[in-house]
Amino acid sequence: MSDLQALPEKTVERLSEYRRTLLRCQKQGITHIFSHVLAGLHGLTAVQVRRDLMLIGFSSDTKKGYDVSVLAEFIGEILDTPQPMNIGVIGMGHLGQAITKYFNSKGLNLRIVAAFDVDENKVGSIIDDIPCFSMDELAAKVEELEINIVILSCPTRVATDVVLPIVNAGIKGVLNFTSKPLNFPLGIVVENYDITTLLEKVAYFVKEQERTDI
Amino acid sequence: MSDLQALPEKTVERLSEYRRTLLRCQKQGITHIFSHVLAGLHGLTAVQVRRDLMLIGFSSDTKKGYDVSVLAEFIGEILDTPQPMNIGVIGMGHLGQAITKYFNSKGLNLRIVAAFDVDENKVGSIIDDIPCFSMDELAAKVEELEINIVILSCPTRVATDVVLPIVNAGIKGVLNFTSKPLNFPLGIVVENYDITTLLEKVAYFVKEQERTDI
Repeated sequence: MSDLQALPEKTVERLSEYRRTLLRCQKQGITHIFSHVLAGLHGLTAVQVRRDLMLIGFSSDTKKGYDVSVLAEFIGEILDTPQPMNIGVIGMGHLGQAITKYFNSKGLNLRIVAAFDVDENKVGSIIDDIPCFSMDELAAKVEELEINIVILSCPTRVATDVVLPIVNAGIKGVLNFTSKPLNFPLGIVVENYDITTLLEKVAYFVKEQERTDI
Repeated sequence: MSDLQALPEKTVERLSEYRRTLLRCQKQGITHIFSHVLAGLHGLTAVQVRRDLMLIGFSSDTKKGYDVSVLAEFIGEILDTPQPMNIGVIGMGHLGQAITKYFNSKGLNLRIVAAFDVDENKVGSIIDDIPCFSMDELAAKVEELEINIVILSCPTRVATDVVLPIVNAGIKGVLNFTSKPLNFPLGIVVENYDITTLLEKVAYFVKEQERTDI
């Protein structure tokens, strides 16, 4: 696979979604699925689905559709690392706990192994089966627990304060849930993921819909 | 504004982000900002920022940069409805509560006014200042409280069960946080927003980064 270029961001997102749908199909005993069915479940065109799968070099038996298990596994080889990737959560408030609970309940290749917080009541305790450490322990625990990625679920007002500790700890990827877009040095993958943006986007298109309905 | 076409999705997302940055600048007493500075804060090119603002018909004094207050207000007129938009949360578990707490603490034009759940311990109580109703009350409360948008934070396994009640209640927009992409009839705006996808995406690009570094 090492001759492949990195895939487009949106293709990676869709592959992740296809796989979850395929795994659900598998559970329901569905063995094959046509590209237009898979497309329909995601609100996409069949051409889009076929193009995404072409990009990862997957071709299917068109008579019966895609083999669900084979395709799920094929996507897994593209997306997953050979070893599960370890994740740390910075900020174990409501959002951090919601995310941790959510991931703990899934059999993903990504696993949350540690939380970090400044709250003395949380540091040293186990929350949702995850040990909670102080921010001072970040670098040491990142090394010890082989953490590659952190989820940033701390309050927005302290978001910039954690950038340097994250960089110094050798973190490779950041999923930022605060309202502040953060810049990290080249080589660190950042996904800024603000809930407000999405909600304002839905609100805007609802408004547009109402305007054009008149 | 009624002669304007609906803006591209990504432009709407960026406008929402620009505004939040502008409001932060305002708080810090910054009155003007150059396009390349605003761009840099979002990891974008100045050309991209200028193109987005051109789309909404905003032109600036290039000598001093954009007027922060004027631009923030201008974007508000594009994104916001004249009245605050009322939002309901379906599923008042950890994620629902985290989202509600998050929004309650911000002075947004979007406000969460009600929660809906099947848990008898929650129905009839006030959680984070928000009244929690049973799912049977959805249609009545949507009408009474003039709710336009719902946030779906229920468990994924029941996600499809709430589609019909949402449609019947006359909801116009859905922000779906479950792992299941949902299809709604034309005319209902849906944003599927799965945390797993984002995290798998970060993990993929971290893996890619490591591969190309070798």
